[in-house]
Amino acid sequence: MTRRLELLTVDDCLALLRGRYVGRVAFTSSGHPTLRPVNYVLDEGSIVFRTSLGELLDDVLNSGAVAFEIDDIDVEDHTGWSVIVHGKAEEIWQPEELGHARSLPLRPWAPGEREHYVRIAPNWISGRRIVVG
Amino acid sequence: MTRRLELLTVDDCLALLRGRYVGRVAFTSSGHPTLRPVNYVLDEGSIVFRTSLGELLDDVLNSGAVAFEIDDIDVEDHTGWSVIVHGKAEEIWQPEELGHARSLPLRPWAPGEREHYVRIAPNWISGRRIVVG
Repeated sequence: MTRRLELLTVDDCLALLRGRYVGRVAFTSSGHPTLRPVNYVLDEGSIVFRTSLGELLDDVLNSGAVAFEIDDIDVEDHTGWSVIVHGKAEEIWQPEELGHARSLPLRPWAPGEREHYVRIAPNWISGRRIVVG
Repeated sequence: MTRRLELLTVDDCLALLRGRYVGRVAFTSSGHPTLRPVNYVLDEGSIVFRTSLGELLDDVLNSGAVAFEIDDIDVEDHTGWSVIVHGKAEEIWQPEELGHARSLPLRPWAPGEREHYVRIAPNWISGRRIVVG
């Protein structure tokens, strides 16, 4: 049984992003890379998540480029896949777009008021999968 | 049913890190934050993972500070926890330490030659858990 790394197409990546609800966003905070789990939805090809006004929101918006990742890794089999999205994070504030964002099936992971919506429009998407056989 | 956010102690975080095998490392690549899943072990209070010589290794080592995260989030219940470690990533190269690293139960996620070992010695560790009730 050999294992090999297979690159995923953008369509494969989008299909995987559509089927998941939790990912991790990597951004810069005080000059250092950091990351946090978020609940998200794929909406019109971009990642949308909710957050509260605060450090995370400020950091993500000030970060310029951010990265977003989902994966599913089987530790026993050593198989799995990961998808990484790179893009700029922007707050959704225009009334029409905000109304749309509020209608998305999006519940934040952490409790508390989380009335800010962030969109990561992908500059590029990459994915890879470990294939056995 | 209310949900609230509880901060974890460092001992709780270390216990959770001890029980997992896959995390994500966030680092800087070409000036932008990015992240990758890695198989790791907690060894003497620090994160150790294997990687190949290449872009990931170079970026992680040149990144200065990096972040490492594990989580377990229940999308149905909206409960879960996450642990984040911040520290500097350093390659393990001293013969004695490298011999020790090679003896760790550490199999890389992706196939291929991965004979480089990286240690993230934590500067700080933080964790939080969503508690229901």
